[in-house]
Amino acid sequence: MLHRAGVVLAADHPLRIMSHPLDSIFCPRSVAVIGASNAPEKYGYIILKNLLEAGFAGSVYPVNPKATEILGRPCTRSIADLPPGVDLAVIIIPARAVPQAVADCGQRGIKAAIIISGGFAESGEAGAALQREVVEAARRSGVRVVGPNCQGVNNPHHGLCASWPLLTEQGEIAVISQSGTVGAALMDWASQERLGCSAFVSLGNRCDVDETDLIDYLAQDANTRAIAAYLEGVKDLARFREVVSRCGKPIVILKSGRTVEGRRAAESHTRSLAGRDELYTALFRQLRIHRVDSLEDLYDAAKALAYLPKPGGRRILTITSSGGSGILATDWAEWSGLQVAALPGPVAETLRGLLPTHCIVANPLDLTGDGTAALYRKVVEATAPHFDYQVIIFGDPILQAADVVTPGAPQLVIFLGGAEVERQERARMHQKKVPVFPTPERGVRALARLFAFNGVAA
Amino acid sequence: MLHRAGVVLAADHPLRIMSHPLDSIFCPRSVAVIGASNAPEKYGYIILKNLLEAGFAGSVYPVNPKATEILGRPCTRSIADLPPGVDLAVIIIPARAVPQAVADCGQRGIKAAIIISGGFAESGEAGAALQREVVEAARRSGVRVVGPNCQGVNNPHHGLCASWPLLTEQGEIAVISQSGTVGAALMDWASQERLGCSAFVSLGNRCDVDETDLIDYLAQDANTRAIAAYLEGVKDLARFREVVSRCGKPIVILKSGRTVEGRRAAESHTRSLAGRDELYTALFRQLRIHRVDSLEDLYDAAKALAYLPKPGGRRILTITSSGGSGILATDWAEWSGLQVAALPGPVAETLRGLLPTHCIVANPLDLTGDGTAALYRKVVEATAPHFDYQVIIFGDPILQAADVVTPGAPQLVIFLGGAEVERQERARMHQKKVPVFPTPERGVRALARLFAFNGVAA
Repeated sequence: MLHRAGVVLAADHPLRIMSHPLDSIFCPRSVAVIGASNAPEKYGYIILKNLLEAGFAGSVYPVNPKATEILGRPCTRSIADLPPGVDLAVIIIPARAVPQAVADCGQRGIKAAIIISGGFAESGEAGAALQREVVEAARRSGVRVVGPNCQGVNNPHHGLCASWPLLTEQGEIAVISQSGTVGAALMDWASQERLGCSAFVSLGNRCDVDETDLIDYLAQDANTRAIAAYLEGVKDLARFREVVSRCGKPIVILKSGRTVEGRRAAESHTRSLAGRDELYTALFRQLRIHRVDSLEDLYDAAKALAYLPKPGGRRILTITSSGGSGILATDWAEWSGLQVAALPGPVAETLRGLLPTHCIVANPLDLTGDGTAALYRKVVEATAPHFDYQVIIFGDPILQAADVVTPGAPQLVIFLGGAEVERQERARMHQKKVPVFPTPERGVRALARLFAFNGVAA
Repeated sequence: MLHRAGVVLAADHPLRIMSHPLDSIFCPRSVAVIGASNAPEKYGYIILKNLLEAGFAGSVYPVNPKATEILGRPCTRSIADLPPGVDLAVIIIPARAVPQAVADCGQRGIKAAIIISGGFAESGEAGAALQREVVEAARRSGVRVVGPNCQGVNNPHHGLCASWPLLTEQGEIAVISQSGTVGAALMDWASQERLGCSAFVSLGNRCDVDETDLIDYLAQDANTRAIAAYLEGVKDLARFREVVSRCGKPIVILKSGRTVEGRRAAESHTRSLAGRDELYTALFRQLRIHRVDSLEDLYDAAKALAYLPKPGGRRILTITSSGGSGILATDWAEWSGLQVAALPGPVAETLRGLLPTHCIVANPLDLTGDGTAALYRKVVEATAPHFDYQVIIFGDPILQAADVVTPGAPQLVIFLGGAEVERQERARMHQKKVPVFPTPERGVRALARLFAFNGVAA
């Protein structure tokens, strides 16, 4: 939802007013593919196909002077021949032709360009000179540029897959990445889990649009609840500091190039100055950014921050059908600073009346291998008022497990050892927007992130 | 393959001689399900169904005095009525009837029993007394017992799924677990990845068969190349020390109950004395056991140790289509004590002749987004003689990626960001027995395990 002058409009409402400089990138009316191709192995084919198959409501125009038709769409010969209403161009042509194409886009009233093509600053001095020409052309003509040397943009809420692979699952995690692969991997995991993303932007060489511009956009994007970023360096520290300070949404960052060899590799990848690691540690701490060390941490933290409610305190109760998983959760809870509090006497007494005698009424509360959804529900209801968070571990193929959990309730859900039933129930929970974690360790560590961000006292 | 008196027989060869006391558990001729049930939610139904569907070559006999037929199989009324040739009984009846059933099994010539039923030592003093009766009945009648209170046994190489969920993928990782769920989760991951397991045993209360017996069996099991165990405590430290010392196969252990609250929970789960954590740290170090902290670490380490060849040294070369993934691999390699060595000058020169100009010829070697299987193959071949291990990262939907890798070669393979193509190629690689890791961090950490086990000098 967008708030503007007191009027609330859905992001895809026909009356929606363009209100942010980057709207043309995320929510264009129509899109042109400059350098569309008939060769299935080329990105000019792959991206056109993904745009056509992702459910984009506007028109998609392939531009190619030599072809008459690509993927059943008539080709436009040049940028100048495009009809009005094209807000965004995706450019996949040889690097040397890109500066002129950007100028032509400006001429034709196109507001933004995503440059997929490589061969710019990442490839040496000649490429760097070309990239400077792109920047000049963009400034002169008022075109905003993502890339070059990038994997594009995907906004599933707008049916816009100007990227690869084809991923369309809508969700509430936004992904910003200096590595196309890293971003695509995150978005693929979210799609596989049926949790989805709100947006993905591959930054590439970020000759114009950078991570700070995107955070500024995503801060006001109604679909985004948490921002996950892979970065090799922050481009403009002063602006970054200012924009992040007023962002108001949780940000998780995986910053690479932290070792001697890693830093050297980062500097040759996107010409980022990876910088001294301690500098980033201090900056991120000050800005209350969640810093993570691995890709799966990045995903888990963003998932927790996007979909779990704020905790009122650190007292957790683990409810499980798997004793072993309960112990692992307990070890990690203690390591992560959570409080594994004892069950109050009267609650324990009530539970002993409700449960079969073989259940272990303690924390973790172990329903043992006979745990059913009905039994879980009884325990969840009886104990909710007495703890800040419930850690609910389904450790068997528990049918209807998804009916046990409640969106928005302080419940951390973990599912493992359930094979096909687990996969079905996980998808059902994700459709309810209840995030599910694959192991006790990953779940508990992600939960601990919430406490850190929300500043609950230890 | 089994070696016996100079004769080598395949594990499933008809002439194979039973040579280990636990053969009846892993490779029985026929199996009886004591307490088979017609009710689909009961384990007496689920396990019978899994036994019938997993491709077991011997006979499966449901035993139930009240039913005439279950799942299309005629019921036997009692253990005494079973035909000869039954080596293994799976027992799923109320705890109080189990001691007699074990005695009856011995009487009928059945050599081993897996007791699924709970209600023994884990449930209090009365249960503990019953468990002592089971142990006495087993000793008197010479029946070996797995459990009670366990999730059974699965040996995919023998078509024996006396457990749940139904998993049949054959592989070379053996899983031993004091938690049924934890073991099932590992085996499910291996099955989903088409990598498979050699065996899974859920230990339960381990009133007879314990982790040491199983390591002793798996040491001589021709299908097992690495052993992954989840334990809350070692039952018999002296025997464990002796058997592990002469095992000769890599062992990875996730030991839980390491914190104050975790230890308390472990002691109520399977009555394990979790013991002081430092004791296990010292023991595992001395025995060169790989200790891990999380379930995914347990899986990754076992996967690397089962399927990757021994390294000759620590010098690695990363080959990638994803610059970002290459940097992450480099950071983690440096953190893990691997050597990110420079490309020798002549090799770099050769590669510059072979590759498009936009590729970054360094370590990591970045083929960029245009990396194809053919390009990877060129680089892999040209650089193999100059490094101890190649870290090959596929960071895009790279068709035919599986054709690049060679089973048994010193190559660590990572695949991410490739969506459907990634899943297809990963399955193809796993069918070739080349393990694939999901992120640079997990791959590199697993690789570092190999160096530790094999004692390559830092």
